[in-house]
Amino acid sequence: MVHPKPPPEPGGGFPTGEDAVLERIRSRLEHRLGPPGPGEIWIGDDAAVVAVPAGPDHTALLLSTDAVVEGIHFDLALVSLCDVGWKALTVAVSDIAAMGGTPRHALVALGAPPGLELEEVADGLAEAAAHSRCALVGGDLTEAGQLVLAVTVTGQLDGPGPAVLRSGARPGDALFVTGPLGASAAGFRVLRAGDPDANGGSLAAAYRRPTARLEEGQTARAAGASAMMDVSDGLALDLHRLAGASHVGVAIDHVPIAPGATLDEALGGGEDYELLIATADGRRLCGAFDEAGLRPLLRIGVCRSDPDERSVGDATLPIVGHQHRF
Amino acid sequence: MVHPKPPPEPGGGFPTGEDAVLERIRSRLEHRLGPPGPGEIWIGDDAAVVAVPAGPDHTALLLSTDAVVEGIHFDLALVSLCDVGWKALTVAVSDIAAMGGTPRHALVALGAPPGLELEEVADGLAEAAAHSRCALVGGDLTEAGQLVLAVTVTGQLDGPGPAVLRSGARPGDALFVTGPLGASAAGFRVLRAGDPDANGGSLAAAYRRPTARLEEGQTARAAGASAMMDVSDGLALDLHRLAGASHVGVAIDHVPIAPGATLDEALGGGEDYELLIATADGRRLCGAFDEAGLRPLLRIGVCRSDPDERSVGDATLPIVGHQHRF
Repeated sequence: MVHPKPPPEPGGGFPTGEDAVLERIRSRLEHRLGPPGPGEIWIGDDAAVVAVPAGPDHTALLLSTDAVVEGIHFDLALVSLCDVGWKALTVAVSDIAAMGGTPRHALVALGAPPGLELEEVADGLAEAAAHSRCALVGGDLTEAGQLVLAVTVTGQLDGPGPAVLRSGARPGDALFVTGPLGASAAGFRVLRAGDPDANGGSLAAAYRRPTARLEEGQTARAAGASAMMDVSDGLALDLHRLAGASHVGVAIDHVPIAPGATLDEALGGGEDYELLIATADGRRLCGAFDEAGLRPLLRIGVCRSDPDERSVGDATLPIVGHQHRF
Repeated sequence: MVHPKPPPEPGGGFPTGEDAVLERIRSRLEHRLGPPGPGEIWIGDDAAVVAVPAGPDHTALLLSTDAVVEGIHFDLALVSLCDVGWKALTVAVSDIAAMGGTPRHALVALGAPPGLELEEVADGLAEAAAHSRCALVGGDLTEAGQLVLAVTVTGQLDGPGPAVLRSGARPGDALFVTGPLGASAAGFRVLRAGDPDANGGSLAAAYRRPTARLEEGQTARAAGASAMMDVSDGLALDLHRLAGASHVGVAIDHVPIAPGATLDEALGGGEDYELLIATADGRRLCGAFDEAGLRPLLRIGVCRSDPDERSVGDATLPIVGHQHRF
């Protein structure tokens, strides 16, 4: 979630803004650099999947990078420097979770104006790295006009089988999320307004200290999930992305809203970092979550064969959520 | 090189500024996260060396991240967006060169204000990636108040033996650089002043389109170099760093100055991306460069047993070069 949230592009075309720029860049890069190797995934999913240098056949390395920028992704009046470090690392690790992987190493490029207590940022980075059992192995420190952190994470896939991509959903697959949505957006709203946090601080905590759903992602991969991504830019926009990548439609019949959040925040707020999971075998997936002692999955709908079907209840699934403007 | 170049810290203490902050951060991280695994190098060298996830024993993965920021590392009045992309990728790849490695993958976190032609940045990134035979496998795109690129590169070590660290120089080792220094700083000077580039455009080209010395780094590693780093922040400062990491002194008797550059630019300008190499066997190293058809190495001095000896000719090696202020 980002403030202020931009309106959908005029005309409702999709992909818009960021996605459109990304697609143009991707095609230019592929034109110049050639396509990915067999079994590799480069740009377009939560993390890249590449062959391990000098590794045995079929050993995959996951790579992902994510940036957070002061004034765009966070406001230092509402979060501490330690929170910023936590969040920057966690959102990068979340991309590894979304592939079903285990994070291994993190690198941080940190740009900051003179005078900031960078040790506090480092403390937040270290806390989050320890929480994700991820080694913080390197970085770069530079001056910048605003605080910006770009975190790169490597990951591995434990056990057999490929990474879970966005593109694997099939008509008839059930769609789940790992938790209710909108808490981070609601947390931002109450913090900005100075309102009391009606939910014992849970909304502010969701905004300041998101959690990467690592065990959930690994469990879903082991249980045969067909497609997966993290809900970083809003459920609606991320559903459009998963549906587009998988060439399926989606019919949503239930949007789980976090206590204290609104439907708009659940659909378009973003920064929830819950996982969106598709599977042909919902019973197996839910059983695996139960067996692992994880919070029960929430079923939100189903994939359809008509790729143009994008519905929530009787309405069209809106194109809301965060896209940067370029 | 960075503009404006900051003066040395009052008192001449070392490490100063950026290095001091980095050291404090490193010690806090190690306190929280524990030390690197056997054979691993985390923070403190050009790139991190980590064990390959699920790879065979002793397979090393190199990881490095580097950020460039508008107004700090480049001025869009003097360089094109394509140049910025080239430079951002090349300076990250240079860190892999400095370990003796081969780059494999790059990821780019790109923050930009609305309205910039990001495709041009992507073209420069792709050109540099193709030049380094490095796959551009992922990235993140976000709004920011100024153009900022953080590039992460993975690399591998071909052939037997470990990476070449900064810390391996021994008393008596000869010190070499792969080329004359100061051209980038001189290029920045003539571009900013609007002066004619007296050297057929070579100074401006050095500033706009640096080269990562990949083959030089690989050749030096294969020829038994004891320590190596890239000259990114100025020869003087980087010599202090190599000497400090290796617990040796340095006696410099020759500073190779690029045509059109000054001694100050060669010592303190930075952004040359030539390699600084220490070796116990200069004849073997120079022979390997000759055999590989590389430009002859330039001998600049020798490592001493007294770690406090830091001299250039009869003078003290100054603490000049770029350190960011925090």
